[in-house]
Amino acid sequence: MHHAIDFIQDLAVIMLLAGIVTVIFHRFKQPVVLGYILAGVIIGPYTPPFALIHDEATINTLAELGVVFLLFSLGLEFSLRRLAKVGVTALVAALTEIVLMLWLGFEIGRGFGWDTMDSLFLGAMLAISSTTIIVKALDELGMKRENFAQLIFGVLIVEDILAIAMIALLSGIATSGSVNAVDVGLTLGKLLLFMVVSLVVGLLLVPRLLAYVARFKSDEMLLVTVLGLCFGFCLLVVQLDYSIALGAFLIGAIMAESRELHVIERLIAPLRDMFSAIFFVAIGLLLDPRVLLHYAAPIAVITVAVVLGKIISCGLGVFVSGQDGRTSMRVGMGLAQIGEFSFIIASLGLSLKVTSDFLYPIAVTVSAITTLLTPYLIKGADPFSRWLGRAMPPRVAYVFRQYTQWLQGLRLSDERAALVGIFRRVAFNVSVNLALVVTIFLVVAYFSPRLIALFSPWVTDDGLQSTLVWGVALLLALPFLIAVYRKLKSISLLLAELSVRPAMTGRHTAHMRRAVAEIIPAAAMVGVMLLVAALSASILPSTEMLLLLVCGALLLAILLRRWFIRIHAKLQIALKHTLEQDSEQS
Amino acid sequence: MHHAIDFIQDLAVIMLLAGIVTVIFHRFKQPVVLGYILAGVIIGPYTPPFALIHDEATINTLAELGVVFLLFSLGLEFSLRRLAKVGVTALVAALTEIVLMLWLGFEIGRGFGWDTMDSLFLGAMLAISSTTIIVKALDELGMKRENFAQLIFGVLIVEDILAIAMIALLSGIATSGSVNAVDVGLTLGKLLLFMVVSLVVGLLLVPRLLAYVARFKSDEMLLVTVLGLCFGFCLLVVQLDYSIALGAFLIGAIMAESRELHVIERLIAPLRDMFSAIFFVAIGLLLDPRVLLHYAAPIAVITVAVVLGKIISCGLGVFVSGQDGRTSMRVGMGLAQIGEFSFIIASLGLSLKVTSDFLYPIAVTVSAITTLLTPYLIKGADPFSRWLGRAMPPRVAYVFRQYTQWLQGLRLSDERAALVGIFRRVAFNVSVNLALVVTIFLVVAYFSPRLIALFSPWVTDDGLQSTLVWGVALLLALPFLIAVYRKLKSISLLLAELSVRPAMTGRHTAHMRRAVAEIIPAAAMVGVMLLVAALSASILPSTEMLLLLVCGALLLAILLRRWFIRIHAKLQIALKHTLEQDSEQS
Repeated sequence: MHHAIDFIQDLAVIMLLAGIVTVIFHRFKQPVVLGYILAGVIIGPYTPPFALIHDEATINTLAELGVVFLLFSLGLEFSLRRLAKVGVTALVAALTEIVLMLWLGFEIGRGFGWDTMDSLFLGAMLAISSTTIIVKALDELGMKRENFAQLIFGVLIVEDILAIAMIALLSGIATSGSVNAVDVGLTLGKLLLFMVVSLVVGLLLVPRLLAYVARFKSDEMLLVTVLGLCFGFCLLVVQLDYSIALGAFLIGAIMAESRELHVIERLIAPLRDMFSAIFFVAIGLLLDPRVLLHYAAPIAVITVAVVLGKIISCGLGVFVSGQDGRTSMRVGMGLAQIGEFSFIIASLGLSLKVTSDFLYPIAVTVSAITTLLTPYLIKGADPFSRWLGRAMPPRVAYVFRQYTQWLQGLRLSDERAALVGIFRRVAFNVSVNLALVVTIFLVVAYFSPRLIALFSPWVTDDGLQSTLVWGVALLLALPFLIAVYRKLKSISLLLAELSVRPAMTGRHTAHMRRAVAEIIPAAAMVGVMLLVAALSASILPSTEMLLLLVCGALLLAILLRRWFIRIHAKLQIALKHTLEQDSEQS
Repeated sequence: MHHAIDFIQDLAVIMLLAGIVTVIFHRFKQPVVLGYILAGVIIGPYTPPFALIHDEATINTLAELGVVFLLFSLGLEFSLRRLAKVGVTALVAALTEIVLMLWLGFEIGRGFGWDTMDSLFLGAMLAISSTTIIVKALDELGMKRENFAQLIFGVLIVEDILAIAMIALLSGIATSGSVNAVDVGLTLGKLLLFMVVSLVVGLLLVPRLLAYVARFKSDEMLLVTVLGLCFGFCLLVVQLDYSIALGAFLIGAIMAESRELHVIERLIAPLRDMFSAIFFVAIGLLLDPRVLLHYAAPIAVITVAVVLGKIISCGLGVFVSGQDGRTSMRVGMGLAQIGEFSFIIASLGLSLKVTSDFLYPIAVTVSAITTLLTPYLIKGADPFSRWLGRAMPPRVAYVFRQYTQWLQGLRLSDERAALVGIFRRVAFNVSVNLALVVTIFLVVAYFSPRLIALFSPWVTDDGLQSTLVWGVALLLALPFLIAVYRKLKSISLLLAELSVRPAMTGRHTAHMRRAVAEIIPAAAMVGVMLLVAALSASILPSTEMLLLLVCGALLLAILLRRWFIRIHAKLQIALKHTLEQDSEQS
């Protein structure tokens, strides 16, 4: 009872002060987020009146809920189609930004004589821009629908994904103390696999489930279901050693494709607002103004580095991938701040006990200053790019123009573009199917002890047991393997058509073409099976059994070909339907 | 970090299971609340699979938030005007119900050989019906707008207020071990005073503040402000040793009169749904099915007692105050269950360590069974009252009809009704003003040490200090005292007109009337000042100083009469405006 009262008191203090400061900040047209952080500083233990918070553990738990709801809401605003549209530009810009800022942050840290870990984490903190702050700023400026804003969102999405990869890598480096190229590759590969599979499976199941619940026309039930799915998925993700942030974002992105998106957004908004307020206040609680004064010099340097570094790196990335100078400048200036991900990375360092205490308040202060600057930078982008256009030496301007023209000249002819498009679609399709195959084998391998326990009353032989388990996996994977084979075959036919010219092979043309069209997919399938065998090494049966199984599967595939194809087609259509449903609405 | 993960896991388990069970319950048209409790039982430690919850303390804290949001939402649906309309009937019904059920519960407890405290708490648990469950049931049956439903809501409101008084009394009895009539009177008086003053001050300030914040057109800011006010007021209430439930309900009732009511309801609904789900699941967590089996006999007896006792007591109460038989039966059958207040009282007993462990699960089980019955009882009320009408012996039916006719004959004539109306309004007005006066003196007395510290650099004499403090209180109270005097004077004039008849007093009529009209308010004011002096005994200056102050105040009142009246009128108009605004909208 007393515990609860303490907690209500904390909430009362937080919400009262947050409310007051927020109204004042809004009145003077400053970002509300800063108001929350300031409220936290006032309540916090370092400024008088002292000790207004009693139950810091519970507050921090609720702040963690704030992260979940913030990223879940972000996921709800995420759009796979939007990402596909600005994909290449966003990827180039985000990569340029992250690499440059990582290096810049690391060098600044070393320059101030901090140790390697502190410098590395500083670099990571500066690498990612703040989605929350940018979305709020663009919203308030009424620019959310403009072209450059769409590009910014694309960059932010790529950044979010890369940030999650970075968190995974940093945890690895912090615990092992070294960077290993193989480990990095493996980590990223597993992450990508997990994301693709979650999206495919989630898109097949979640929108259907939500549509079923929505039929009861009860906001309460829909909310409880959404929260159950959200926290349940977060739990799964945490069990797999990924961050809760990734889980919340992914399940949000999945729900973004459901018909009930608008109801969900309306129901989640108050929860997000309440808990994100607590999250930002909790950040303020950690700030000690004296520490900030003591680190005034690094803060100043880092702030300048963030603003200039991000404008240059993002702007350059966007320009290099073919956008005009004005758009590049607007994107760069929009992204020139750090935010919630920096806090997450900073607290990661603290909880792993590899970074110093001063890093967190520095991150928060730099974030506060750059957040304050964001609306002015966005508004100043156009005047600045006009000024830059006039002030630039004519020769430099000429080089830039030449580059843009050269890039446009590089664009593919219609016919080749169509071909590249076909290859790209097939490659995407094959990758997704392969990801599913790999996941089926991994999941079956993971659950093999239980499966074997299930079989054990009937099958006692060890070899036979693993044969059965592996066989189950193969059977489940068969529709996807057949789909991969069919796609590869169709593309091989096309390749054969293009590469084997009658001028060269004469009357053997037809044979050669057929050979190419048969050999490529067959070879690819052998490669796929080797990969699968390597991944499921723990449950691999003996070679004879394996051959028997594969032959059986081949036979089955030939006999029940139509049936397997129909299953796969149904799944594919269901997925497409889910993705297109949304486009009809919005 | 690990703490937070545990907590997310708990939330995930709760929300996932709550979602699934809820969908099933809704599918079979059973109350969703029972689904939550069942989910809690499944997750709980007494049923396999064991130990799905790790961080029970935090879950209980969030469940406490559930109580806050539940009662806050109830307050939002509360209407002062609605209460005024059904006031007398609701009061009679609620009092009949509470007294009868208290007695019944106590006797049942004694009958099973439980000790006095357990029996007393059992009685209290059975006394109050469940607002949540009734509102849900009526909502689902589509009967929310009907006449008997309005009566039920009235009874529930009175019950809520009486329940809060009961909680205060039970705490007192549990700690002192005895019942003291003076203490009871004092407790109830203080509670009433607090509620009146909170409502008046709240209605003056809160809707204006909300209107100001709403002008920014930001749901987030409005939500944070609403939450700040809600938790802030809860905190104040808890500091005054009342329950958090009272605070949440009162501030909700205050906000119900603001223009932004509909936006607030929309924003609060998801928070209420999330936390009340946790609240009901947390109740289920405490249930041990084995304990229930062991106490099957008491549970059966108590369930029958609740259903029959409430139907009879509420029905009778409603009938006695002049409603027809059908309405009485519908109200009685609608109120025949126990719910969240019973859990609150049960956990009060546990936390005060005066009741046995088995009381809580019994309360929850009886609540679950009676909740299940509620929709059927409401639906069955009409057929049952028709059957009763036919089955009743003609003589009994005749007596009932006679009573109803006699009561209708008793209704006042138009003229007398108008007079009673005037007296009632004046009495209400005077009471509210007196409550404000008393509160001003109590608050000033409470803060007198700080006020004295404020004066002390200039005024060193002790007597002078308390004179000053008391003078400040008197000055603040002056507008309300003048209002009381004016109201009393107007009513005395009326009284004089009515009581001093020319037939009796002849030519002295005018003098007599004037004397009556002057003496009554003057005497009343002396009484008021004596009361005030008694209440502010701790800061009372010496008698000479007191006389001096009172004379000064009199002089001031006469000189600045118009100004004080204008201030008071402004406040009164503002209050009226707030209360009428709402009626324009809904």
